[in-house]
Amino acid sequence: MFMHETVVRVRYGETDRMGYMYYGNYPSLLEVARVEALRTLGFPYKQLEEDGIMLPVRDLTVRYHRPVHYDEQITIRTRITAMPGASVHFTYELFNEAGTLVSEASTTLVFVGSEGRRPRRAPEALLQALAPYFP
Amino acid sequence: MFMHETVVRVRYGETDRMGYMYYGNYPSLLEVARVEALRTLGFPYKQLEEDGIMLPVRDLTVRYHRPVHYDEQITIRTRITAMPGASVHFTYELFNEAGTLVSEASTTLVFVGSEGRRPRRAPEALLQALAPYFP
Amino acid sequence: MFMHETVVRVRYGETDRMGYMYYGNYPSLLEVARVEALRTLGFPYKQLEEDGIMLPVRDLTVRYHRPVHYDEQITIRTRITAMPGASVHFTYELFNEAGTLVSEASTTLVFVGSEGRRPRRAPEALLQALAPYFP
Amino acid sequence: MFMHETVVRVRYGETDRMGYMYYGNYPSLLEVARVEALRTLGFPYKQLEEDGIMLPVRDLTVRYHRPVHYDEQITIRTRITAMPGASVHFTYELFNEAGTLVSEASTTLVFVGSEGRRPRRAPEALLQALAPYFP
Repeated sequence: MFMHETVVRVRYGETDRMGYMYYGNYPSLLEVARVEALRTLGFPYKQLEEDGIMLPVRDLTVRYHRPVHYDEQITIRTRITAMPGASVHFTYELFNEAGTLVSEASTTLVFVGSEGRRPRRAPEALLQALAPYFP
Repeated sequence: MFMHETVVRVRYGETDRMGYMYYGNYPSLLEVARVEALRTLGFPYKQLEEDGIMLPVRDLTVRYHRPVHYDEQITIRTRITAMPGASVHFTYELFNEAGTLVSEASTTLVFVGSEGRRPRRAPEALLQALAPYFP
Repeated sequence: MFMHETVVRVRYGETDRMGYMYYGNYPSLLEVARVEALRTLGFPYKQLEEDGIMLPVRDLTVRYHRPVHYDEQITIRTRITAMPGASVHFTYELFNEAGTLVSEASTTLVFVGSEGRRPRRAPEALLQALAPYFP
Repeated sequence: MFMHETVVRVRYGETDRMGYMYYGNYPSLLEVARVEALRTLGFPYKQLEEDGIMLPVRDLTVRYHRPVHYDEQITIRTRITAMPGASVHFTYELFNEAGTLVSEASTTLVFVGSEGRRPRRAPEALLQALAPYFP
């Protein structure tokens, strides 16, 4: 299993009039988390796209356990729990500053060639980078 | 079962550099769809809040079957499939202009009193408005 | 002078914890307004891009006179006050449901060829469509 | 004069189908910049609100000199150029990783009491914190 943590701070514009982070702003933070996770593995998402590979999202789930407030620092723990094939699955746990689990989420992304936008398998280099985590 | 359809147009700022509507912008459109559905029932969400009831989202799922592009008009078919209790569940089907199902989604929202922000049951008037759809 | 009006409704996710529409969400509504204005002229922005012309924004000003609230319907009065050359200037007045001017804004967009992304002049067909408004 | 620099990274969801950061996403980054500037001065914006002071934006200008792309790190240089009175004015310069000035912006925010939402003067403690920068 591969795990990575990143910290984001809730912006004012991300709150709504309940005073909570709007439920629709979580996916953007999940994107930050998985992009930073891939960067740690040596795969900046930007580089993937420059290599002709896109990663559109196929599935998203979010469970909102507790509200998140303005200016709170949220720790997102991102996991890749299985070797990617034609897709890669990320799970996320979000914790507030008190260490309380406030949200859980998951996304499945599919590998697509930029040319023709057809499904393809995960690039070999990504599989090699992940191999040590799935012995 | 209660069903409602609303149409939204994809804004430029909602696209990303793949040229698709960004996956994180779907929840905002689901909000528009369910708010218009509630308005049809005689329950503007704004009125609910003025009556001291909030409806934070507890669960979200989105399945992205096909990309949606700039300026496309998306028809969102919203359903309430069961009488609400402490929560209300919405399902959504998104269709593009060709009538193709491009996405499916669901949200569960919980009834919360604004004062104290404690869980409560659905307001009686909403149950009465929905009753004819669940004979 | 060319003038066009469009109506948008403030979404929940566009509010912030002050209960107002977040100041950063106005540009997206200005985009909707000018896109609908161009559509009325027979120039869907999407078509412009398919014809190889992009219109990035060079300048933006917004003056926020009064707050705008959740679910309010905002009428945006959009004007093109001069024949476009290498750029096109839009001004906007935003009115709430009571007819009160709540905001004024302006944007200047530049014509750019998609290939090479170099400045160019407004397409001839747009100038012809606008000519009757600038006799 | 008070100056502060903060660095933000362009998120995927902030780009549009031109491949640039969408013009409407700049205000959110300006918010991050001025909030971090105020934090440095010892005035977390959250604390201001807890003290009963809100800072709605009255004026915004943005000049977009050069596009900004996905994943670029943008340095925002924020300045308060005059002692606040009933309002506070911020100017911003945005630089890309090559150090090129890509955008300039300004915002004027007004001090408002949360109760009654009436204009008021800047809190004394903020004036004292800024005083050393305006000798």
